[in-house]
Amino acid sequence: MKAAIFKGKGSVVIEDRPKPTISEPTDAIVRVVLACVCGSDLWFYRGISEVDHGGVGHEFIGVVDEVGSDVTNVKPGDFVISPFSWSDGTCRNCEHGFQTACVHGGFFGQGGDGDGGQAEYVRVPQADGTLVTVPGSDFSDETMASLLALTDVMATGYHAAVSAGVTEGMTVAVVGDGAVGLSGVLASKLLGAERIIVLGSKTESRHALAREWGATDIISVRGDEAEQQLKDLTDGFGADAVLECVGTKESVETAFAVAAAGAIVGRVGVPHGVEVDAEGTFYSNIGLRGGPAPARHYQPELLKQVLDGSINPGKVFDATFTLDDIAEAYAAMDERRAIKALVKVSELA
Amino acid sequence: MKAAIFKGKGSVVIEDRPKPTISEPTDAIVRVVLACVCGSDLWFYRGISEVDHGGVGHEFIGVVDEVGSDVTNVKPGDFVISPFSWSDGTCRNCEHGFQTACVHGGFFGQGGDGDGGQAEYVRVPQADGTLVTVPGSDFSDETMASLLALTDVMATGYHAAVSAGVTEGMTVAVVGDGAVGLSGVLASKLLGAERIIVLGSKTESRHALAREWGATDIISVRGDEAEQQLKDLTDGFGADAVLECVGTKESVETAFAVAAAGAIVGRVGVPHGVEVDAEGTFYSNIGLRGGPAPARHYQPELLKQVLDGSINPGKVFDATFTLDDIAEAYAAMDERRAIKALVKVSELA
Repeated sequence: MKAAIFKGKGSVVIEDRPKPTISEPTDAIVRVVLACVCGSDLWFYRGISEVDHGGVGHEFIGVVDEVGSDVTNVKPGDFVISPFSWSDGTCRNCEHGFQTACVHGGFFGQGGDGDGGQAEYVRVPQADGTLVTVPGSDFSDETMASLLALTDVMATGYHAAVSAGVTEGMTVAVVGDGAVGLSGVLASKLLGAERIIVLGSKTESRHALAREWGATDIISVRGDEAEQQLKDLTDGFGADAVLECVGTKESVETAFAVAAAGAIVGRVGVPHGVEVDAEGTFYSNIGLRGGPAPARHYQPELLKQVLDGSINPGKVFDATFTLDDIAEAYAAMDERRAIKALVKVSELA
Repeated sequence: MKAAIFKGKGSVVIEDRPKPTISEPTDAIVRVVLACVCGSDLWFYRGISEVDHGGVGHEFIGVVDEVGSDVTNVKPGDFVISPFSWSDGTCRNCEHGFQTACVHGGFFGQGGDGDGGQAEYVRVPQADGTLVTVPGSDFSDETMASLLALTDVMATGYHAAVSAGVTEGMTVAVVGDGAVGLSGVLASKLLGAERIIVLGSKTESRHALAREWGATDIISVRGDEAEQQLKDLTDGFGADAVLECVGTKESVETAFAVAAAGAIVGRVGVPHGVEVDAEGTFYSNIGLRGGPAPARHYQPELLKQVLDGSINPGKVFDATFTLDDIAEAYAAMDERRAIKALVKVSELA
């Protein structure tokens, strides 16, 4: 089969690899229909974080091809969404809604010999706990893109908002207007935010989608100037909840600086070289929550909302590639020509 | 009047000072009945944090002596509890339950020319928003001590538990068995914790009160050994919620180390030289909340529970002094001869 293989900084190529097989009775093999490239894939692509050469990509939806003898929740032919990590669904951490900390869990697309989602087939461990079946078999391209968004980006934006404690009527600040930040805007709106202030780039297409999804104000400057603008918009108090959707030292500092007393910073950007000054945040009772999104926890509810048309998170994809063109998909993301790249792998039916 | 005056490291003495007068129409003057010494007073007493020489002590209950022309919620003769900070009760931060971040607020007993609670009289700014009236006029010594505990220590332990998100059925870890940690045990029990594990000292009297208030397990070793014991008690997962009641680098590290995936560390110990490694806590979705307790927010509810006898937080006081003996009260706390020192200033009636 064809699979995207990370070959070192700036290089992801298609190679021929053996089709994965069932190795544990709890496994399923999924034929990938759609995959995509994540902002976090750029960390290894740019040589910032270390990943062994090998299969990459952790976002995919597809059709169950084969299941192990212990698998009962899905069967060959089922159309399924996968979260970006696998989980047994039964341990203490899964039961508490933190499937990314499952004691039998792991993450797709970490290089080496492991399976990546940017491939024709993927072996999914703990299939019963991991995969979510999508009812139906005929979907528009828009709906397919929205289902793909639930594998990571929308679930991650949603986790940022849930972690930040967004509730009805709040003023929310979203730091970052990449795919996750935009999804955080949509999630904040879903959770009832009254005012959503985006601190992001100067890119008009991002602003447009942010506004469509519920952003009321957009700040496109940075640092002290951004903080001051946000304070001016909130009578000097700051935001009731803050979504940190980038993960750099600067973005984390901005997130804390724009938080009102008692607010929580919900962070989902993988932190790189970030330390939190415990004293600076103490006196205003500013909290910090979040981490890798338990996408599996949110998928059943978000799936319903995609299927009934109340949300359309797939709009975050603004460029489409085939698996053969995976190198170009990475380049488009790296060079910021695309917010998020969708990768067509096979047909659903 | 007599007032405790901080004179430099290791020295708090009684001096004669002018009785405070109304300086703003929103002020009240309170005649102090009971005061006490806080663990956080030891930071300046030991020369670790800087406080100007002057009036100290931030915990007091007493009788309203005089009110400014704008004060309507309390009147002379009312028996009142004060939080350790004053607040207007009407700004955004007060309305959100974070009175310690009130825009017109401040903290008692910060040295200099300001008023301290370890004195015969205290000027209370923003009296309408700050003071809580206690119904009745005849109370046992035990009840009086419990009312005094609401000014800070019990409210602070309660804030740790609320910040950590303690709810029904949880396994809670309390780091520290000083007065705040013990109050955190009582608070966790009130909020429905099923199992309460204290990580504290080897002092038997502290263990006894912890167990009386609901602790199910006590760990009296430190560092890696303590972390291992807690993990062993929780099937390797850690605690569902963690109360950090000390504020040192070591205690904060322990708090994070014993937190289960998705748990929140509720911290109320004033942090000294603490930095939080954002990456280490990220992958398990461990959160951090808390800060100076909005005691005023919790006092009405906790007052009810003291008066109906369902809680007795005053048991945390295990030594009693007069205002004249204030130096001895500090020394007893400093030398760990007392968990918390109560200071008798005047009679209620």
